[in-house]
Amino acid sequence: MKPKRTAPAHIKIAFQGDHYAFSELAAKAYFGDQAQCQPCPTFDAVFGAVASGSSQFGIIPIENSSTGSIHVNYDLLLQHDAVIVGEVYYRVDHQLIANPGVRLQDVREIHSHPQALEQCRQFITSLEQVRALPCFDTAGSVRMIRDQKLHHAAAIASRKAAEDYGMEILEQDIQDISENYTRFLVLAGEAAVAEQADKTSIVFAAQNIPGALFKSLSAFALRDIDLCKIESRPWRGRPFEYIFYLDFRGTPEQTACRNALRHLEEMTSFLKILGSYQSGNGLK
Amino acid sequence: MKPKRTAPAHIKIAFQGDHYAFSELAAKAYFGDQAQCQPCPTFDAVFGAVASGSSQFGIIPIENSSTGSIHVNYDLLLQHDAVIVGEVYYRVDHQLIANPGVRLQDVREIHSHPQALEQCRQFITSLEQVRALPCFDTAGSVRMIRDQKLHHAAAIASRKAAEDYGMEILEQDIQDISENYTRFLVLAGEAAVAEQADKTSIVFAAQNIPGALFKSLSAFALRDIDLCKIESRPWRGRPFEYIFYLDFRGTPEQTACRNALRHLEEMTSFLKILGSYQSGNGLK
Repeated sequence: MKPKRTAPAHIKIAFQGDHYAFSELAAKAYFGDQAQCQPCPTFDAVFGAVASGSSQFGIIPIENSSTGSIHVNYDLLLQHDAVIVGEVYYRVDHQLIANPGVRLQDVREIHSHPQALEQCRQFITSLEQVRALPCFDTAGSVRMIRDQKLHHAAAIASRKAAEDYGMEILEQDIQDISENYTRFLVLAGEAAVAEQADKTSIVFAAQNIPGALFKSLSAFALRDIDLCKIESRPWRGRPFEYIFYLDFRGTPEQTACRNALRHLEEMTSFLKILGSYQSGNGLK
Repeated sequence: MKPKRTAPAHIKIAFQGDHYAFSELAAKAYFGDQAQCQPCPTFDAVFGAVASGSSQFGIIPIENSSTGSIHVNYDLLLQHDAVIVGEVYYRVDHQLIANPGVRLQDVREIHSHPQALEQCRQFITSLEQVRALPCFDTAGSVRMIRDQKLHHAAAIASRKAAEDYGMEILEQDIQDISENYTRFLVLAGEAAVAEQADKTSIVFAAQNIPGALFKSLSAFALRDIDLCKIESRPWRGRPFEYIFYLDFRGTPEQTACRNALRHLEEMTSFLKILGSYQSGNGLK
């Protein structure tokens, strides 16, 4: 994939995980190989790095084509003031990785990020006497089994992580659905001028009126604005009421979208624009 | 909470987790204290027990008021043929539980189900030098720290689990949001005649037409049928296309709902009715 832009060397991009995590690979696909990527222990810390300015950009996974949304990141988008300035679709091929000499039949434990374990659930359950152990990161789990010289363990991570840590691949491309893509969002501290922006993400709470969601969507449908994604999340402190995250085609620079947002605002208790950005290439 | 019905003693209800898990407490709130509850290691096994008839009913958590949907159970509802025949809202108060004599400052590890850890995230991160360790079950984590006599560990589970395992409560009601409810669904192998059914759950995939979701919801809005919940999930094998789970007020026995479903069917690639049942009392 040709990187979309070439970031100057002093630009830092915060990501969750260890070096060679899929988030870092996605950041390099987006910004180019020379991008300086800054590992963070949690997604919260990625938002923190962008807010403090210690990284100019952040990158977070938001949804996977097999396992769905990464809901914690939807919640963090609401809690923090980061702006979405880009997206990238990245193909995620999972490798089963072990120390040199370890055979598949020796493996009793598989370590990885919970998302990766979930994307390879069928593969893992097909192995007998093997436990899946959640770890904070895919690449970090490879480093851990290498550093601890574990000979009854394997990790699930990228081919790049296997190569760069000098480990062996026991089984290739073990994800349950071979076409496995993760959509990542690129975050910044403030909205950049994205000339080629063609997609916008918002979050809103509908007023408590009959047919509220239908009426909210009408603001877009009546203006022929395409929706790409809807996600509902609990409204904190209001049991079993919901807020909605919407992605739609277009930006508030366009009259129809501006009018749709004004129309939507009449029917909402709150509405926040999370950012306008250029659609990721590749899948859609 | 008064149980909704009193199940004969030979009726078995499958649930995920160990005895005194919140799913078992919810089953007893629904069926009465004498209900025979059957522990299962996984949610998949709960669906399996209902399908094979080894349990007449199953109970699964489907959403929590603080942390949102339990997405794996949405996916399993699509994969299996179980029918939703009831729902129950159960208040979930989490206790920090340890072996007698252990003090809060001794605790270095907190074990529990990932959902419980997530519902107590602020509490856990407020403690220094403490690691959260995911376990297959809340009550099971209490039993594990008791059986292994762990003195630097605590578990998060129900008050009932603490009492019945003879353990001490170090901190009470540690969930981040004090009003913490989980909605459980009651499953059966085939649709029961529920005279008081007033709510229906369905899953569908909209056709690939502009404004598809808006048009799908119009089938309900145009007939003044209230929606309670919408959830989107990945459509397996079709990257970044979605299926939708809807709960609405009413049942296909009513003309308006029957017409709405027929109207919806015109616009969908597939549509499955997951069940009609009486709304859980309590919250809504």
